[in-house]
Amino acid sequence: MTDTAPRVTAADLAAFIARCLREVGVPDDDAKTVGGLMSQADANGSDGHGVFRLPQYVRRIQAGGMEPAAEISIVRETSATALVDGGNGLGHLAVKRAVDLAMDKAGETGVAWVGTRNSNHAGPAGTYARMPLARDMIGIYMAVGNANHLPPWGGTDMLLSTNPIAVAIPALAEPPIALDMATTVAAYGKVKTKAQRGEMMPEGWMIDALGNPLTDPKRADEGFLLPIGGAKGYGLALVFGLLAGTLNGAAFGKDVIDFNADDTSVTNTGQMIIVLNVRAFMDVDQFKRQVDDVIHQMHASPTMPGVDAVRIPGEHAHQVRAEYQRDGIPIHPALMEKLEVLTAELGVPGLIS
Amino acid sequence: MTDTAPRVTAADLAAFIARCLREVGVPDDDAKTVGGLMSQADANGSDGHGVFRLPQYVRRIQAGGMEPAAEISIVRETSATALVDGGNGLGHLAVKRAVDLAMDKAGETGVAWVGTRNSNHAGPAGTYARMPLARDMIGIYMAVGNANHLPPWGGTDMLLSTNPIAVAIPALAEPPIALDMATTVAAYGKVKTKAQRGEMMPEGWMIDALGNPLTDPKRADEGFLLPIGGAKGYGLALVFGLLAGTLNGAAFGKDVIDFNADDTSVTNTGQMIIVLNVRAFMDVDQFKRQVDDVIHQMHASPTMPGVDAVRIPGEHAHQVRAEYQRDGIPIHPALMEKLEVLTAELGVPGLIS
Repeated sequence: MTDTAPRVTAADLAAFIARCLREVGVPDDDAKTVGGLMSQADANGSDGHGVFRLPQYVRRIQAGGMEPAAEISIVRETSATALVDGGNGLGHLAVKRAVDLAMDKAGETGVAWVGTRNSNHAGPAGTYARMPLARDMIGIYMAVGNANHLPPWGGTDMLLSTNPIAVAIPALAEPPIALDMATTVAAYGKVKTKAQRGEMMPEGWMIDALGNPLTDPKRADEGFLLPIGGAKGYGLALVFGLLAGTLNGAAFGKDVIDFNADDTSVTNTGQMIIVLNVRAFMDVDQFKRQVDDVIHQMHASPTMPGVDAVRIPGEHAHQVRAEYQRDGIPIHPALMEKLEVLTAELGVPGLIS
Repeated sequence: MTDTAPRVTAADLAAFIARCLREVGVPDDDAKTVGGLMSQADANGSDGHGVFRLPQYVRRIQAGGMEPAAEISIVRETSATALVDGGNGLGHLAVKRAVDLAMDKAGETGVAWVGTRNSNHAGPAGTYARMPLARDMIGIYMAVGNANHLPPWGGTDMLLSTNPIAVAIPALAEPPIALDMATTVAAYGKVKTKAQRGEMMPEGWMIDALGNPLTDPKRADEGFLLPIGGAKGYGLALVFGLLAGTLNGAAFGKDVIDFNADDTSVTNTGQMIIVLNVRAFMDVDQFKRQVDDVIHQMHASPTMPGVDAVRIPGEHAHQVRAEYQRDGIPIHPALMEKLEVLTAELGVPGLIS
């Protein structure tokens, strides 16, 4: 991020997103909810998943590919499971409903698994895995990514997305452990961010159809993302897709719509959340103390030559959040330009007045 | 595997394992159960996890580190969760109890999560993830590995194990999808197998303390396993360990006993299983047909230069199983020697009479 990037508060960013969404027909409450969740992504440094996506969401609503005022419904339900239909609205709303429901159920049964169908892109996986932390619960979230950039291992047909997993586990004095990762070496959002900024990608993110490294993000269409651990990452992307997509009656494999290239087709995106109530297994404070202890063990490890410190998943985001809370969230000039075009089109006040 | 390796049937192998275990005090029913599960590992080609481990289990029981006649108990329970105490017996028995309980609960609530503590090494993760398939359920299994060979990413203190995940998903005409993977590039059992056979490891499995490739498995003690995807694999090993270990009151981090070096200390091994009842989300046959369809899509993908076919997780094990069922399970001569020493010590009939 350049030092000259304008900075905004999370509240201003949330309000800005909400007014853009209201302008294209999203009801006020929903617009505020989505604004809050999207700005939270930026506040955590997930800058490929926050306001960066707003022009695309607006375009999709305007093109008729996404419902601004969606009805969310519960299609199936048992005491510990549910299937939520997002009504083809903003994915944030469908997934938040799923997580709320899962937390309520886990409060009764100890664990719950809630899936979504007919949802849409919902931002960073970690947003949803972290929600149960407030109730001393553990969250495990998986999703079908919204564009296929990954072939099965050894293949060249792009049938899979970066299908991410996020796991959040509460700690006591330490920040929670919050893993949020694509099953590919790099998430496609990072490729898009590099392209927008005119930067090159490191080797290892993508290969071309002959298996050679591809480092120019503007040529991303010609290549594939690489899964972590080769066949293992492919296996994870496959099973996460079946659990978050197929099981919910959502799109997976060749049925996934490339939402970067197509604004009008219904994506039928699927996600899933597992919520575990820590109380079902152990006294909550005792558990959190033990998580702190594990964190301290990791931090106390000597480091390899050239490494300054061992990090815990979520630690970097936690530090970014603290910095941005103090100094504001930087908006990259290239993104700011796009947001100015958007506000001019919508006729709403800009992010920075 | 050499062509001259003697071959045995799974039934003979199971009976052999059972009589060795009975000889060191394991009750008849339990010995049969463990014999069946261990021989199933060999029958699937998981040759680092089957009868290969028998001498070590026997040694541990004889040394007083593991209870041959363990009492398994349920420590905590809600409608959809339970915590099973394995009584420091063979891990196979504790985990099988956990999976049985989870399947019964998932039949009622739709999903269940059951953890174990005071368990021991239980063989391949896939064994347990696959059990729910017989009831049209999905299994997700995680475990804390029984020796720490992985430092946190960037560190040199071996605080983590290969903490595996296995996921099994039923299909209709196709074999089930059965992912079974360590969070490291190679499982430590594979390193041990290479050492026993006097073979070298490929680069990428392990590094030494300076970060250089380590390929001699006899020098494994001097180095570390590498996690898949760098920091991502470390993150997965960490959260799987917290969920399968810490949450259950089982050992994790510095408390993990190296069961290859120490036969007497109680390992307090932890595992966990999530069982999902497919019926809670979709008609079972409809789901299985859609899984078949996903499998067909993957198989139909053109391949990269030099790759003969795209594979599905579990497909190779399925083929091995069919081959071994026809031709018998090969027992590597180096392993056979060890088993002959064992049977001579125990005074029981050998595997091949």
